[in-house]
Amino acid sequence: MSTPPAFDAAFAGQFAELLRWRRDVRRFRRDQVPAELIETLLAQVELSPSVGHSQPWRWLSIMEPGQRAAVQASFRRCNAEALTAYEGDRAALYARLKLEGLQEAPVQFAVFCDHATERGHGLGRLTMPEMLDYSVVAAITQFWLAARIHGLGVGWVSILEPAEIAAALDTSPDWKLIAYLCVGWPTEECDVPELVRAGWETR
Amino acid sequence: MSTPPAFDAAFAGQFAELLRWRRDVRRFRRDQVPAELIETLLAQVELSPSVGHSQPWRWLSIMEPGQRAAVQASFRRCNAEALTAYEGDRAALYARLKLEGLQEAPVQFAVFCDHATERGHGLGRLTMPEMLDYSVVAAITQFWLAARIHGLGVGWVSILEPAEIAAALDTSPDWKLIAYLCVGWPTEECDVPELVRAGWETR
Repeated sequence: MSTPPAFDAAFAGQFAELLRWRRDVRRFRRDQVPAELIETLLAQVELSPSVGHSQPWRWLSIMEPGQRAAVQASFRRCNAEALTAYEGDRAALYARLKLEGLQEAPVQFAVFCDHATERGHGLGRLTMPEMLDYSVVAAITQFWLAARIHGLGVGWVSILEPAEIAAALDTSPDWKLIAYLCVGWPTEECDVPELVRAGWETR
Repeated sequence: MSTPPAFDAAFAGQFAELLRWRRDVRRFRRDQVPAELIETLLAQVELSPSVGHSQPWRWLSIMEPGQRAAVQASFRRCNAEALTAYEGDRAALYARLKLEGLQEAPVQFAVFCDHATERGHGLGRLTMPEMLDYSVVAAITQFWLAARIHGLGVGWVSILEPAEIAAALDTSPDWKLIAYLCVGWPTEECDVPELVRAGWETR
Protein backbone atom coordinates (compact mmCIF):
# COMPACT_ATOMS: atom_id res chain seq x y z
CA MET A 1 0.00 0.00 0.00
CA SER A 2 1.32 3.38 -0.96
CA THR A 3 0.49 6.82 0.42
CA PRO A 4 -3.07 8.02 -0.09
CA PRO A 5 -3.26 10.81 -2.66
CA ALA A 6 -4.50 14.26 -1.70
CA PHE A 7 -6.58 15.98 -4.32
CA ASP A 8 -6.32 19.74 -4.33
CA ALA A 9 -8.83 22.42 -5.32
CA ALA A 10 -7.34 22.63 -8.81
CA PHE A 11 -8.02 18.95 -9.40
CA ALA A 12 -11.51 19.24 -7.94
CA GLY A 13 -12.21 22.11 -10.31
CA GLN A 14 -10.94 20.21 -13.32
CA PHE A 15 -13.01 17.19 -12.31
CA ALA A 16 -16.11 19.40 -12.17
CA GLU A 17 -15.27 20.58 -15.70
CA LEU A 18 -14.93 16.95 -16.77
CA LEU A 19 -18.45 16.21 -15.55
CA ARG A 20 -19.72 19.35 -17.26
CA TRP A 21 -18.14 18.51 -20.63
CA ARG A 22 -18.79 14.77 -20.74
CA ARG A 23 -21.38 14.18 -23.44
CA ASP A 24 -23.27 11.32 -24.99
CA VAL A 25 -21.60 11.53 -28.39
CA ARG A 26 -23.27 10.51 -31.64
CA ARG A 27 -21.08 12.37 -34.15
CA PHE A 28 -17.63 10.89 -34.60
CA ARG A 29 -14.68 11.44 -36.88
CA ARG A 30 -13.60 8.19 -38.50
CA ASP A 31 -9.94 8.52 -37.38
CA GLN A 32 -8.56 5.52 -35.59
CA VAL A 33 -8.03 5.44 -31.82
CA PRO A 34 -4.68 4.08 -30.59
CA ALA A 35 -5.14 0.56 -29.26
CA GLU A 36 -2.89 1.35 -26.27
CA LEU A 37 -5.22 4.15 -25.20
CA ILE A 38 -8.21 1.81 -25.22
CA GLU A 39 -6.19 -0.76 -23.27
CA THR A 40 -5.28 1.85 -20.68
CA LEU A 41 -8.92 2.85 -20.26
CA LEU A 42 -10.08 -0.76 -19.94
CA ALA A 43 -7.41 -1.39 -17.32
CA GLN A 44 -8.72 1.55 -15.29
CA VAL A 45 -12.23 0.14 -15.55
CA GLU A 46 -11.08 -2.97 -13.72
CA LEU A 47 -10.87 -0.75 -10.63
CA SER A 48 -14.57 0.10 -10.73
CA PRO A 49 -16.80 -0.71 -7.76
CA SER A 50 -18.68 -4.01 -7.95
CA VAL A 51 -20.99 -5.81 -5.58
CA GLY A 52 -19.02 -8.35 -3.54
CA HIS A 53 -15.98 -7.45 -5.68
CA SER A 54 -17.62 -9.59 -8.39
CA GLN A 55 -16.26 -7.60 -11.37
CA PRO A 56 -19.00 -9.00 -13.64
CA TRP A 57 -18.34 -6.73 -16.63
CA ARG A 58 -17.49 -8.35 -19.96
CA TRP A 59 -16.34 -6.00 -22.69
CA LEU A 60 -16.58 -7.31 -26.24
CA SER A 61 -14.83 -5.25 -28.89
CA ILE A 62 -17.00 -5.34 -31.99
CA MET A 63 -14.91 -5.07 -35.16
CA GLU A 64 -16.37 -7.65 -37.53
CA PRO A 65 -18.40 -5.91 -40.30
CA GLY A 66 -21.17 -8.52 -40.19
CA GLN A 67 -21.65 -8.03 -36.47
CA ARG A 68 -21.64 -4.25 -36.82
CA ALA A 69 -24.23 -4.53 -39.60
CA ALA A 70 -26.45 -6.65 -37.35
CA VAL A 71 -26.27 -4.01 -34.61
CA GLN A 72 -27.17 -1.28 -37.10
CA ALA A 73 -30.09 -3.35 -38.37
CA SER A 74 -31.36 -3.83 -34.82
CA PHE A 75 -31.09 -0.09 -34.22
CA ARG A 76 -33.02 0.75 -37.40
CA ARG A 77 -35.81 -1.67 -36.48
CA CYS A 78 -36.07 -0.47 -32.87
CA ASN A 79 -35.82 3.18 -33.81
CA ALA A 80 -38.62 2.87 -36.37
CA GLU A 81 -40.76 1.18 -33.73
CA ALA A 82 -39.93 3.91 -31.20
CA LEU A 83 -40.99 6.60 -33.67
CA THR A 84 -44.52 5.17 -33.81
CA ALA A 85 -44.93 6.00 -30.09
CA TYR A 86 -44.85 9.74 -30.81
CA GLU A 87 -47.31 12.02 -32.58
CA GLY A 88 -47.31 15.39 -34.31
CA ASP A 89 -44.43 17.75 -33.62
CA ARG A 90 -42.85 15.34 -31.15
CA ALA A 91 -42.75 12.61 -33.82
CA ALA A 92 -41.26 15.02 -36.35
CA LEU A 93 -38.63 16.06 -33.83
CA TYR A 94 -37.81 12.44 -32.93
CA ALA A 95 -37.35 11.60 -36.61
CA ARG A 96 -34.78 14.41 -36.93
CA LEU A 97 -32.66 13.35 -33.94
CA LYS A 98 -29.29 11.71 -34.50
CA LEU A 99 -29.25 9.07 -31.78
CA GLU A 100 -26.16 6.99 -32.56
CA GLY A 101 -22.82 6.95 -34.34
CA LEU A 102 -22.85 3.29 -35.30
CA GLN A 103 -21.66 3.96 -38.86
CA GLU A 104 -18.75 6.18 -37.92
CA ALA A 105 -17.41 5.22 -34.50
CA PRO A 106 -14.08 3.43 -34.99
CA VAL A 107 -14.27 1.60 -31.65
CA GLN A 108 -17.40 -0.17 -30.48
CA PHE A 109 -18.09 -2.29 -27.43
CA ALA A 110 -20.96 -4.49 -26.43
CA VAL A 111 -20.78 -4.58 -22.64
CA PHE A 112 -22.38 -7.49 -20.83
CA CYS A 113 -22.99 -8.56 -17.26
CA ASP A 114 -22.00 -12.15 -16.54
CA HIS A 115 -24.82 -13.54 -14.42
CA ALA A 116 -22.99 -16.85 -14.08
CA THR A 117 -19.91 -15.46 -12.39
CA GLU A 118 -19.03 -17.04 -9.08
CA ARG A 119 -16.89 -14.11 -8.09
CA GLY A 120 -18.27 -12.25 -5.10
CA HIS A 121 -19.98 -15.41 -3.81
CA GLY A 122 -23.37 -13.72 -4.07
CA LEU A 123 -22.52 -11.11 -1.44
CA GLY A 124 -24.89 -8.12 -1.52
CA ARG A 125 -27.19 -9.62 -4.15
CA LEU A 126 -29.76 -11.68 -2.23
CA THR A 127 -32.44 -8.98 -1.87
CA MET A 128 -31.18 -6.74 -4.69
CA PRO A 129 -29.93 -9.07 -7.45
CA GLU A 130 -29.88 -6.12 -9.85
CA MET A 131 -26.69 -4.99 -8.07
CA LEU A 132 -24.70 -7.17 -10.48
CA ASP A 133 -25.99 -5.20 -13.47
CA TYR A 134 -25.44 -1.94 -11.61
CA SER A 135 -21.78 -2.87 -11.15
CA VAL A 136 -21.38 -2.96 -14.91
CA VAL A 137 -23.07 0.44 -15.23
CA ALA A 138 -20.59 1.87 -12.73
CA ALA A 139 -17.70 0.55 -14.82
CA ILE A 140 -19.17 2.06 -17.98
CA THR A 141 -19.59 5.41 -16.21
CA GLN A 142 -15.94 5.39 -15.16
CA PHE A 143 -14.88 4.43 -18.69
CA TRP A 144 -16.93 7.33 -20.04
CA LEU A 145 -15.16 9.86 -17.82
CA ALA A 146 -11.71 8.36 -18.38
CA ALA A 147 -12.25 8.46 -22.15
CA ARG A 148 -13.32 12.12 -22.10
CA ILE A 149 -10.11 13.08 -20.30
CA HIS A 150 -8.27 11.94 -23.40
CA GLY A 151 -10.69 13.73 -25.71
CA LEU A 152 -12.52 10.54 -26.66
CA GLY A 153 -16.28 10.62 -26.99
CA VAL A 154 -18.57 7.82 -25.86
CA GLY A 155 -22.15 7.25 -26.97
CA TRP A 156 -24.40 4.74 -25.21
CA VAL A 157 -26.86 3.19 -27.64
CA SER A 158 -29.92 1.58 -26.00
CA ILE A 159 -32.30 1.62 -28.98
CA LEU A 160 -31.47 -2.02 -29.65
CA GLU A 161 -33.09 -5.38 -29.05
CA PRO A 162 -30.78 -7.19 -26.57
CA ALA A 163 -31.79 -10.62 -27.91
CA GLU A 164 -30.77 -9.61 -31.43
CA ILE A 165 -27.41 -8.34 -30.23
CA ALA A 166 -26.76 -11.50 -28.24
CA ALA A 167 -27.64 -13.62 -31.28
CA ALA A 168 -25.38 -11.59 -33.58
CA LEU A 169 -22.48 -11.89 -31.14
CA ASP A 170 -23.21 -15.49 -30.13
CA THR A 171 -22.81 -14.73 -26.46
CA SER A 172 -23.58 -16.98 -23.52
CA PRO A 173 -27.21 -17.04 -22.36
CA ASP A 174 -25.83 -16.04 -18.95
CA TRP A 175 -24.61 -12.72 -20.31
CA LYS A 176 -27.03 -9.81 -20.16
CA LEU A 177 -26.49 -6.86 -22.48
CA ILE A 178 -26.02 -3.69 -20.44
CA ALA A 179 -24.78 -1.27 -23.07
CA TYR A 180 -23.61 -0.88 -26.62
CA LEU A 181 -20.95 1.83 -26.75
CA CYS A 182 -19.67 3.86 -29.67
CA VAL A 183 -16.22 5.32 -28.99
CA GLY A 184 -14.15 7.73 -31.05
CA TRP A 185 -13.06 11.32 -31.57
CA PRO A 186 -16.08 13.63 -31.49
CA THR A 187 -16.64 16.10 -34.32
CA GLU A 188 -17.37 18.85 -31.77
CA GLU A 189 -17.22 19.63 -28.07
CA CYS A 190 -20.12 21.17 -26.22
CA ASP A 191 -21.18 21.66 -22.61
CA VAL A 192 -24.89 21.33 -23.48
CA PRO A 193 -26.43 17.89 -24.08
CA GLU A 194 -27.39 17.31 -27.70
CA LEU A 195 -30.99 16.48 -26.72
CA VAL A 196 -31.25 19.90 -25.08
CA ARG A 197 -29.80 21.67 -28.11
CA ALA A 198 -32.25 19.79 -30.34
CA GLY A 199 -35.20 20.86 -28.19
CA TRP A 200 -36.12 17.34 -27.05
CA GLU A 201 -35.76 18.13 -23.36
CA THR A 202 -35.03 21.18 -21.22
CA ARG A 203 -31.79 21.59 -19.32
CA MET B 1 -20.89 27.81 -24.47
CA SER B 2 -17.38 28.31 -23.15
CA THR B 3 -14.10 26.86 -24.37
CA PRO B 4 -13.72 23.09 -24.05
CA PRO B 5 -11.23 22.18 -21.34
CA ALA B 6 -8.04 20.30 -22.18
CA PHE B 7 -6.99 17.72 -19.63
CA ASP B 8 -3.26 17.18 -19.37
CA ALA B 9 -1.25 14.11 -18.41
CA ALA B 10 -1.01 15.28 -14.81
CA PHE B 11 -4.79 15.37 -14.50
CA ALA B 12 -5.12 12.00 -16.22
CA GLY B 13 -2.63 10.56 -13.74
CA GLN B 14 -4.47 12.00 -10.76
CA PHE B 15 -7.77 10.69 -12.12
CA ALA B 16 -6.24 7.21 -12.36
CA GLU B 17 -5.21 7.57 -8.71
CA LEU B 18 -8.76 8.60 -7.84
CA LEU B 19 -10.11 5.40 -9.38
CA ARG B 20 -7.46 3.38 -7.57
CA TRP B 21 -8.23 4.89 -4.16
CA ARG B 22 -12.00 5.05 -4.34
CA ARG B 23 -13.33 2.48 -1.89
CA ASP B 24 -16.62 1.13 -0.68
CA VAL B 25 -16.34 2.50 2.85
CA ARG B 26 -17.95 0.88 5.89
CA ARG B 27 -15.88 2.47 8.69
CA PHE B 28 -16.64 6.12 9.31
CA ARG B 29 -15.68 8.73 11.83
CA ARG B 30 -18.75 10.38 13.31
CA ASP B 31 -17.57 13.93 12.51
CA GLN B 32 -20.07 16.03 10.66
CA VAL B 33 -19.74 16.79 6.95
CA PRO B 34 -20.27 20.43 5.89
CA ALA B 35 -23.70 20.82 4.30
CA GLU B 36 -22.22 23.03 1.57
CA LEU B 37 -19.90 20.24 0.48
CA ILE B 38 -22.80 17.82 0.13
CA GLU B 39 -24.74 20.45 -1.82
CA THR B 40 -21.79 20.95 -4.16
CA LEU B 41 -21.54 17.21 -4.78
CA LEU B 42 -25.27 16.87 -5.44
CA ALA B 43 -25.13 19.78 -7.88
CA GLN B 44 -22.37 18.01 -9.80
CA VAL B 45 -24.50 14.87 -9.91
CA GLU B 46 -27.15 16.78 -11.84
CA LEU B 47 -24.70 16.70 -14.76
CA SER B 48 -24.66 12.91 -14.89
CA PRO B 49 -25.67 11.10 -18.07
CA SER B 50 -29.28 9.95 -18.24
CA VAL B 51 -31.33 8.23 -20.90
CA GLY B 52 -33.24 10.82 -22.94
CA HIS B 53 -31.92 13.46 -20.50
CA SER B 54 -34.54 12.15 -18.08
CA GLN B 55 -32.56 12.86 -14.88
CA PRO B 56 -34.67 10.34 -12.92
CA TRP B 57 -32.55 10.33 -9.75
CA ARG B 58 -34.22 11.28 -6.48
CA TRP B 59 -31.89 11.73 -3.52
CA LEU B 60 -33.50 11.54 -0.09
CA SER B 61 -31.34 12.64 2.81
CA ILE B 62 -32.14 10.34 5.72
CA MET B 63 -31.67 12.11 9.04
CA GLU B 64 -34.68 11.10 11.13
CA PRO B 65 -33.65 8.56 13.84
CA GLY B 66 -36.76 6.43 13.34
CA GLN B 67 -36.08 6.10 9.64
CA ARG B 68 -32.42 5.27 10.23
CA ALA B 69 -33.44 2.64 12.76
CA ALA B 70 -35.79 1.08 10.22
CA VAL B 71 -32.97 0.86 7.69
CA GLN B 72 -30.69 -0.76 10.27
CA ALA B 73 -33.41 -3.26 11.16
CA SER B 74 -33.86 -4.16 7.51
CA PHE B 75 -30.10 -4.65 7.16
CA ARG B 76 -29.94 -6.92 10.22
CA ARG B 77 -32.79 -9.08 8.93
CA CYS B 78 -31.41 -9.34 5.40
CA ASN B 79 -27.87 -9.94 6.59
CA ALA B 80 -28.96 -12.76 8.91
CA GLU B 81 -30.82 -14.32 5.99
CA ALA B 82 -27.78 -13.93 3.72
CA LEU B 83 -25.58 -15.68 6.27
CA THR B 84 -27.71 -18.83 6.03
CA ALA B 85 -26.70 -19.19 2.36
CA TYR B 86 -23.09 -19.94 3.33
CA GLU B 87 -21.51 -22.93 5.02
CA GLY B 88 -18.36 -23.74 6.96
CA ASP B 89 -15.41 -21.40 6.64
CA ARG B 90 -17.25 -19.19 4.17
CA ALA B 91 -20.09 -18.68 6.65
CA ALA B 92 -17.62 -17.91 9.44
CA LEU B 93 -15.87 -15.40 7.21
CA TYR B 94 -19.17 -13.78 6.16
CA ALA B 95 -20.19 -13.38 9.79
CA ARG B 96 -16.94 -11.49 10.48
CA LEU B 97 -17.30 -9.01 7.61
CA LYS B 98 -18.26 -5.42 8.33
CA LEU B 99 -20.59 -4.65 5.47
CA GLU B 100 -22.03 -1.24 6.35
CA GLY B 101 -21.53 1.90 8.38
CA LEU B 102 -25.19 2.58 9.11
CA GLN B 103 -24.56 3.38 12.77
CA GLU B 104 -21.72 5.81 12.22
CA ALA B 105 -22.11 7.53 8.86
CA PRO B 106 -23.21 11.13 9.49
CA VAL B 107 -24.77 11.54 6.04
CA GLN B 108 -27.05 8.94 4.52
CA PHE B 109 -29.02 8.91 1.29
CA ALA B 110 -31.68 6.66 -0.08
CA VAL B 111 -31.44 7.08 -3.83
CA PHE B 112 -34.46 6.26 -5.95
CA CYS B 113 -35.35 6.12 -9.61
CA ASP B 114 -38.60 7.90 -10.47
CA HIS B 115 -40.36 5.57 -12.89
CA ALA B 116 -43.19 8.07 -13.29
CA THR B 117 -41.06 10.90 -14.64
CA GLU B 118 -42.16 12.31 -17.97
CA ARG B 119 -38.76 13.84 -18.61
CA GLY B 120 -37.02 12.27 -21.56
CA HIS B 121 -40.34 11.37 -23.17
CA GLY B 122 -39.44 7.70 -23.09
CA LEU B 123 -36.51 8.13 -25.47
CA GLY B 124 -34.08 5.18 -25.40
CA ARG B 125 -36.24 3.09 -23.06
CA LEU B 126 -38.62 1.15 -25.29
CA THR B 127 -36.52 -2.01 -25.69
CA MET B 128 -34.29 -1.43 -22.64
CA PRO B 129 -36.52 0.09 -19.94
CA GLU B 130 -33.83 -0.63 -17.36
CA MET B 131 -31.92 2.36 -18.80
CA LEU B 132 -33.82 4.60 -16.40
CA ASP B 133 -32.40 2.72 -13.40
CA TYR B 134 -28.95 2.69 -15.00
CA SER B 135 -29.07 6.49 -15.24
CA VAL B 136 -29.37 6.65 -11.46
CA VAL B 137 -26.44 4.27 -11.05
CA ALA B 138 -24.32 6.54 -13.26
CA ALA B 139 -25.18 9.51 -11.04
CA ILE B 140 -24.25 7.55 -7.93
CA THR B 141 -20.93 6.54 -9.50
CA GLN B 142 -20.12 10.16 -10.25
CA PHE B 143 -21.11 11.18 -6.72
CA TRP B 144 -18.82 8.48 -5.36
CA LEU B 145 -15.80 9.80 -7.26
CA ALA B 146 -16.60 13.45 -6.53
CA ALA B 147 -16.90 12.66 -2.81
CA ARG B 148 -13.56 10.85 -2.72
CA ILE B 149 -11.80 13.88 -4.21
CA HIS B 150 -12.79 15.73 -1.03
CA GLY B 151 -11.72 12.83 1.19
CA LEU B 152 -15.28 11.67 1.77
CA GLY B 153 -16.00 7.96 1.81
CA VAL B 154 -19.13 6.40 0.33
CA GLY B 155 -20.51 2.96 1.13
CA TRP B 156 -23.29 1.41 -0.97
CA VAL B 157 -25.51 -0.82 1.16
CA SER B 158 -27.59 -3.33 -0.82
CA ILE B 159 -28.27 -5.84 1.97
CA LEU B 160 -31.70 -4.32 2.46
CA GLU B 161 -35.28 -5.15 1.51
CA PRO B 162 -36.36 -2.36 -0.88
CA ALA B 163 -40.02 -2.70 0.14
CA GLU B 164 -39.10 -2.16 3.80
CA ILE B 165 -37.08 0.94 2.95
CA ALA B 166 -39.87 2.37 0.81
CA ALA B 167 -42.35 1.76 3.63
CA ALA B 168 -40.10 3.39 6.24
CA LEU B 169 -39.59 6.44 4.02
CA ASP B 170 -43.18 6.54 2.74
CA THR B 171 -42.05 7.03 -0.85
CA SER B 172 -44.19 6.94 -3.97
CA PRO B 173 -44.90 3.48 -5.41
CA ASP B 174 -43.36 4.83 -8.62
CA TRP B 175 -40.00 5.24 -6.97
CA LYS B 176 -37.62 2.27 -7.14
CA LEU B 177 -34.83 2.03 -4.59
CA ILE B 178 -31.49 1.94 -6.38
CA ALA B 179 -29.06 2.47 -3.50
CA TYR B 180 -28.72 3.30 0.15
CA LEU B 181 -25.54 5.31 0.66
CA CYS B 182 -23.52 5.93 3.80
CA VAL B 183 -21.33 9.02 3.48
CA GLY B 184 -18.71 10.39 5.84
CA TRP B 185 -15.04 10.68 6.68
CA PRO B 186 -13.39 7.24 6.51
CA THR B 187 -11.32 5.99 9.42
CA GLU B 188 -8.60 4.88 7.01
CA GLU B 189 -7.52 5.09 3.38
CA CYS B 190 -6.47 2.04 1.41
CA ASP B 191 -5.92 1.14 -2.22
CA VAL B 192 -7.07 -2.46 -1.68
CA PRO B 193 -10.79 -3.27 -1.43
CA GLU B 194 -11.85 -4.32 2.07
CA LEU B 195 -13.34 -7.59 0.74
CA VAL B 196 -9.92 -8.46 -0.69
CA ARG B 197 -8.14 -7.61 2.56
CA ALA B 198 -10.66 -9.75 4.46
CA GLY B 199 -10.04 -12.72 2.17
CA TRP B 200 -13.57 -12.81 0.74
CA GLU B 201 -12.44 -12.37 -2.86
CA THR B 202 -9.17 -12.17 -4.74
CA ARG B 203 -7.96 -8.97 -6.35
